[in-house]
Amino acid sequence: MKEINHLNTKVGFIGIGVMGKSMALHLIKRGYQVFVYNRTESKAKELIEAGATWKSTPGEVAKECSVIITMVGYPHDVKQIYFTDNGILQNASEDSIVIDMTTSSPVLAQSIYEEAKKRGIYSLDAPVSGGDIGAKEGTLSIMVGGDKDIFECVVPLLNLMGKNVVYQGKAGNGQHTKMCNQIAIASNMMGVCESLAYAEKVGLDPETVLKSISYGAAGSWSLSNLVPRMIIGNLEPGFYVKHFIKDLKIALESAEEMKLYTPGLEKALSLYEKLAKIGHENSGTQALIELYRA
Amino acid sequence: MKEINHLNTKVGFIGIGVMGKSMALHLIKRGYQVFVYNRTESKAKELIEAGATWKSTPGEVAKECSVIITMVGYPHDVKQIYFTDNGILQNASEDSIVIDMTTSSPVLAQSIYEEAKKRGIYSLDAPVSGGDIGAKEGTLSIMVGGDKDIFECVVPLLNLMGKNVVYQGKAGNGQHTKMCNQIAIASNMMGVCESLAYAEKVGLDPETVLKSISYGAAGSWSLSNLVPRMIIGNLEPGFYVKHFIKDLKIALESAEEMKLYTPGLEKALSLYEKLAKIGHENSGTQALIELYRA
Repeated sequence: MKEINHLNTKVGFIGIGVMGKSMALHLIKRGYQVFVYNRTESKAKELIEAGATWKSTPGEVAKECSVIITMVGYPHDVKQIYFTDNGILQNASEDSIVIDMTTSSPVLAQSIYEEAKKRGIYSLDAPVSGGDIGAKEGTLSIMVGGDKDIFECVVPLLNLMGKNVVYQGKAGNGQHTKMCNQIAIASNMMGVCESLAYAEKVGLDPETVLKSISYGAAGSWSLSNLVPRMIIGNLEPGFYVKHFIKDLKIALESAEEMKLYTPGLEKALSLYEKLAKIGHENSGTQALIELYRA
Repeated sequence: MKEINHLNTKVGFIGIGVMGKSMALHLIKRGYQVFVYNRTESKAKELIEAGATWKSTPGEVAKECSVIITMVGYPHDVKQIYFTDNGILQNASEDSIVIDMTTSSPVLAQSIYEEAKKRGIYSLDAPVSGGDIGAKEGTLSIMVGGDKDIFECVVPLLNLMGKNVVYQGKAGNGQHTKMCNQIAIASNMMGVCESLAYAEKVGLDPETVLKSISYGAAGSWSLSNLVPRMIIGNLEPGFYVKHFIKDLKIALESAEEMKLYTPGLEKALSLYEKLAKIGHENSGTQALIELYRA
C-alpha cells in the first residue's frame, strides 16, 4: 500500500455539514487534493472556494480517490452512499480505503467492512466526539475500528482532524466505543438537569452551587459546560437533540441485542423523545432542563 | 463575637469516624484545643494521643467549647446529639457556634438553626464532599448554610479542613447544595456503569475505551476515578453504598416535597437499594457495576 500523504493521495469527503466542513478544511489546508459531494450542493461552496473539487455523486468521488471519508447524518444515509449503484463500494478502486466517521450502527459498520473486503477495498469506522468546536479546532476524539494496519496508514490523515485518535479493535468497535461515550452522557444529562432543577426550585443560587459541586465527585464535562448554558436559557446546539436521540436508539438496540440491562439509557432516551415531541429536536442537548422546569 | 483562633477558641468535635478523625486532626495540628466525643470511645484513641481531650457526652463537649462541630452518620444521630438532655443545644453556652458537617436533612438543619436561635446559639449546616482522601489532605469541598456573619467567623476554621469553602445562603442551604451534588452523582453512576458494562459485554478493551471517552463530553470524575476501580474489581469504599442510599433518600424526600420530577434519582436510588440487598451496603459506590455484570 502506498504511503498516504498530501502529495500522492486524493481524498474524497462526502457529507459537508457543520462537522464535515471543518474536518475537510483541515485536509485542504494541509495540501491534500480533496473531492467533495453533499446532498445539498450549496453547502459545499466554502470548500470549493478553498480548493476542493465538486463531484455529482458519491460514486464519482469514489472513482477519483484512494481514501474516501464519509460524515453524514443517519445510518440510512450511510447505507445509501455506500451501497447504491452510484455509491461508494460499487465505484471505488481496489486497495482504496473508506472511512465512515458518521456516528452510526456498529452492525452497519461491520457489513460495510465485509462488503468492502469482497471488493478488495479497506474499511474503517471512525466516529468522533468533540462537536463543532472540536471539528473546527482539529481536536476531535476519533475512535477507530477495522484492520490495524489500515488504521496505521491513515493515522496521519486522522491526526489532522483530531488530537485523540485511538484504535479500538475490529470493524464496528469504533462505533461501539462511541456508543459507550453516548451511554455515559445520557444518564449524566439527567443527573445534571435534576441537580440544577433542584437548586432552582429550592431557591439556591445555581452559579454558587456550581462553585461547590463542579470540582469534586459530581464534576463532569456536562456540569461544567452545559449547566451554565441552561442557567441563562441558552438552548442553541452544540449537539442536536435529534442526533442524540439517533445515537441513543442505536446504543439501545445494541444493548438489547446483547441482553444488557440499561435502565439509565432507557429512561434518558424516553426523556429526550418527549423533549423532541414538544418541539426541541433542533435544540442542543442541554434543552433537557426544560422538561424539569415544566 | 470574639475572633476565632487557636489561642482563644476551644473546639468540640463530635463524631470520630474516618472523615471526622482526619478533620479534627487538622484543627489539633493548627494548635486548637479540641474536645471530642464519639459513640465508640476506642475510635477517639488516635486523637487523644494527638492532644484532644475526651468528654463523655455531647453535652459535656458543648459546655466546654465555643465552637462545636458534628460529623456523624445519619439524621437520627444528628437529632440525638443536638436535641436530647445530654445533647448539644441543652448544654451549649450562649453565643457559641454549632456546625453540623454531617450530610443530613435540610429540614433538620433548619430546625437546629431555629432551636439554637431561641437559646442564643448560632448554627451552620456545612456538609462536605471529597471523601476520606479530601478529609485527610484538607481539600474537602464545604457547602455552608446559615447566617453569613457567622459563616465568616468560622471560615478560618473551615479552611483548615477544606479548600473549597462556599457560602450557599440561609440555614439548610448547605444541605440542599450537598443534595445537588449527590443528585448529579446518582444518575451519572448509572451512566458510567452502563457504559463500562456495554464495553465489557461487546468485547472492547475497557481501558482503551477510557482513553477515547474520558477527556470529552462523556468525561466525569466518576468515569476517571471509579471506572478504573470497577475494571479491576476493586469495590473497597471510598464512599459507602449505605451512606449514599441515606443521602439519596434525603434528596428524594426533599424533591418530593417540592413536587420536583426526578426520574434519574429515583431509578438510581432503586438500583442502590437493590445493591445493598444483595450484600453490598458496605462496599464503595462503584460496586453498582455488579448489578450490570450479573
